[in-house]
Amino acid sequence: MDNVIIRFIERPVLENVVLIEGLPGVGNVGKLAAEHLAEELKFTRFAEIFSKYLPPQVLVGADGTVQLVKHDLYYRKGASGTRDMLLLTGDYQGLTPEGQYELSHETVRMAKEMGVTLIFTLGGYGVIKLVEEPGVLGAVTSVDLKTSLEEAGVVFLSGEPSSGIIGASGLLLGLGSLEGIPGVCLMGETSGYFVDPRSARAVLQVLSKYLGFNLDYSSLEKKAMQIDEITSRIKENLDETEEKERPEDLRYFG
Amino acid sequence: MDNVIIRFIERPVLENVVLIEGLPGVGNVGKLAAEHLAEELKFTRFAEIFSKYLPPQVLVGADGTVQLVKHDLYYRKGASGTRDMLLLTGDYQGLTPEGQYELSHETVRMAKEMGVTLIFTLGGYGVIKLVEEPGVLGAVTSVDLKTSLEEAGVVFLSGEPSSGIIGASGLLLGLGSLEGIPGVCLMGETSGYFVDPRSARAVLQVLSKYLGFNLDYSSLEKKAMQIDEITSRIKENLDETEEKERPEDLRYFG
Amino acid sequence: MDNVIIRFIERPVLENVVLIEGLPGVGNVGKLAAEHLAEELKFTRFAEIFSKYLPPQVLVGADGTVQLVKHDLYYRKGASGTRDMLLLTGDYQGLTPEGQYELSHETVRMAKEMGVTLIFTLGGYGVIKLVEEPGVLGAVTSVDLKTSLEEAGVVFLSGEPSSGIIGASGLLLGLGSLEGIPGVCLMGETSGYFVDPRSARAVLQVLSKYLGFNLDYSSLEKKAMQIDEITSRIKENLDETEEKERPEDLRYFG
Amino acid sequence: MDNVIIRFIERPVLENVVLIEGLPGVGNVGKLAAEHLAEELKFTRFAEIFSKYLPPQVLVGADGTVQLVKHDLYYRKGASGTRDMLLLTGDYQGLTPEGQYELSHETVRMAKEMGVTLIFTLGGYGVIKLVEEPGVLGAVTSVDLKTSLEEAGVVFLSGEPSSGIIGASGLLLGLGSLEGIPGVCLMGETSGYFVDPRSARAVLQVLSKYLGFNLDYSSLEKKAMQIDEITSRIKENLDETEEKERPEDLRYFG
Repeated sequence: MDNVIIRFIERPVLENVVLIEGLPGVGNVGKLAAEHLAEELKFTRFAEIFSKYLPPQVLVGADGTVQLVKHDLYYRKGASGTRDMLLLTGDYQGLTPEGQYELSHETVRMAKEMGVTLIFTLGGYGVIKLVEEPGVLGAVTSVDLKTSLEEAGVVFLSGEPSSGIIGASGLLLGLGSLEGIPGVCLMGETSGYFVDPRSARAVLQVLSKYLGFNLDYSSLEKKAMQIDEITSRIKENLDETEEKERPEDLRYFG
Repeated sequence: MDNVIIRFIERPVLENVVLIEGLPGVGNVGKLAAEHLAEELKFTRFAEIFSKYLPPQVLVGADGTVQLVKHDLYYRKGASGTRDMLLLTGDYQGLTPEGQYELSHETVRMAKEMGVTLIFTLGGYGVIKLVEEPGVLGAVTSVDLKTSLEEAGVVFLSGEPSSGIIGASGLLLGLGSLEGIPGVCLMGETSGYFVDPRSARAVLQVLSKYLGFNLDYSSLEKKAMQIDEITSRIKENLDETEEKERPEDLRYFG
Repeated sequence: MDNVIIRFIERPVLENVVLIEGLPGVGNVGKLAAEHLAEELKFTRFAEIFSKYLPPQVLVGADGTVQLVKHDLYYRKGASGTRDMLLLTGDYQGLTPEGQYELSHETVRMAKEMGVTLIFTLGGYGVIKLVEEPGVLGAVTSVDLKTSLEEAGVVFLSGEPSSGIIGASGLLLGLGSLEGIPGVCLMGETSGYFVDPRSARAVLQVLSKYLGFNLDYSSLEKKAMQIDEITSRIKENLDETEEKERPEDLRYFG
Repeated sequence: MDNVIIRFIERPVLENVVLIEGLPGVGNVGKLAAEHLAEELKFTRFAEIFSKYLPPQVLVGADGTVQLVKHDLYYRKGASGTRDMLLLTGDYQGLTPEGQYELSHETVRMAKEMGVTLIFTLGGYGVIKLVEEPGVLGAVTSVDLKTSLEEAGVVFLSGEPSSGIIGASGLLLGLGSLEGIPGVCLMGETSGYFVDPRSARAVLQVLSKYLGFNLDYSSLEKKAMQIDEITSRIKENLDETEEKERPEDLRYFG
């Protein structure tokens, strides 16, 4: 079978397009942001990407119907001064390094054919501590992109993330750059412990400012409050465990 | 070498065919069901599937002869109102995700060429507790298949299995659907601890009712009683171990 | 690069050839047997097999020169009533299941081109206890090979080895059989703890009787005695450890 | 996508070229040596190698720009009696055995096209103890290379390294040799615990003597002193830990 299969539902004609990627990753920040964007700005789904590099699995929906694991592509024609946009999200990243390359390569090829001239990849930047007001870290394929991004609130830290950017958020920039398409990675600060809708909001605030559209964040804030509740309940349990259930004679180890 | 090699022993001409898959998996439910069906309805073996994605291994038979690890394909011409059927079973599932995709892709391709218009995949649904009377959970590629299946006794639980359906039972539905062939997964409830002939029977009872044929289950019941004996013996041993062999001073941990 | 590269040093013309395989495996029985055979019967090396499925490694010889990891092919023209023979041995088996299939597939293809009409694969049969007089277990691709092998001393145990035959010794039979070449696997009983030259001798005694040639085993016996020395020294050390170094208060656990 | 992508920035015309490889490995000796050589002798970067066998990752530079993980190729036209040289270094080795073969195969192919007639691969030889004055161990594809290398200070130890040479340093010799290009591996002794600039210097001293150029080592020495500082600080901490923090009642185990 073909390594990567792109099935078109519709073939929109677009120009000077911005591609925005948000796949699962640290704090699920990118995927949360992409899904919120698709919903709020009423993007239209136009293609599905299937691949033997994705898990060999179907997912079962609320109505009992199955869907092969996939990536979904959405578009939105630019209105009143905003650019045409493509949006990529999905269930999983590629399972193997080679698979991640193949998937990103095919995505870049399709993006180029559809007129993409700028790529935004969205993700989380794990800081291993709780974050009250998440900042947004940036990385770019070309230095001249930095000034306008900084004006939109993006922070650039020399050499950060020190481990690089792994997966689709890195590869779409790297492979896009080889094809002459400039790109930006926006990483919302996040603890890395939980899915983080507030970090997704921070990323979208920067992106919307840069691209010139408005978003309502109330549904993301609702998700954030659900997470808050869960995490505070877990924290309580941990505190209780520490006090009550630890055997007496082991306590001095703590 | 070719990724997947299909060797035909015979080329049956069939129409409006139902493909039934039962490969190894949770509780071995699918494979038990498929083998029982092949034996009771006297299916004819007509093809073998070899692949570098299966284990690099030959199995040794009772007579000392070896067989390369493979999948087997059987057929049965419909008689008195039942449809033509193909049956797929085998020694192993593909070893890697990519291999599972390739194997299912080639199976779907062959199925389409042979006139398959409906796919049933059979498997187990692990519930991590002992099950007296296993129910049969369903998942479908299209909502309009549900009513007639529910009439045959299939239960649909919203979003279940929550982990999706992994391996050939999922991929044949997903890839079949891409080729325009609708499909159903029937999952017999099973503990997941043992091979489970009673769960296989439950699945076959639903399938036979839906497709309109009769089956004798005495050989499956015999297998089930052998398993009962083994599990009750294990249980006794565990009980004894708990009572006799546990060191005194560790007992309060239980 | 090509998956498998066969480099010919010489192109011998042979007929009605027996291929004998002995690659690393349980007790290294197959490789020891193949190397002993090549040396005693003065086989001529005529080809090397390189592959990206073998370890990415060169081995360093006594003179400081390196050799890419490989398989070696030898031949011997039949003399006075014995058949023409090919012999396959090498440093490693393929690293992945797919790699093992590709390597065996190319070997069978080459064997067929060179006139091979019978395949012998040699290996060890691990019994997880020390073996004084190793028997030789057989498995065949066709029942009619059994009688003459039993006359040469081969034992057939119903369904053994129960785990099948894994790696080249299995695949050459399985894939050879698909190409119409019958085959035999000879497995020398071995503990599985050490390399086992005596098991290799047992395998060769059966093979030489079947194929009608004579072998001197003194160099294999010398290797066996070296192993005996090492194992008895290890055993002594273990006994001492048990007596001296075990902490007093843990001894009753033994 | 292509397995390996070589992007040329410039196409230098060279003759009778020496290829020198220094990729990450034991003690990072090869990479340190290659980078020092490129800097001191002012090599010119002329090509980049991208591959799906490298990590799916971009690295972030000090200025916030990203680079796809890659290998870099440099050249230097021979001056006053020294030969033309190519130099290969990079961020990572191939992630899988197959990937390592593919990368080395493409490198050898390009090397041959560019007129390479001798390959040097540089690496570390881990001895699992601290080394004051690292020697340089050699391995060659052909015995007649040894004498002149011994005159330059290379030591040949029969059959060493006993585990062979793994990765690009081995494969470039092995695959180069298949293409008729002789090669040498120079391995600097190193503990294997830390990156080791002094071992890199030892390797370069031998190489420069053999190829007839001069190098300044002050920047490597500076790096070595930084490592010295770190390791002595770690050592102090370990000593303190041993004395202070070890629980009294466990000490006799040491």
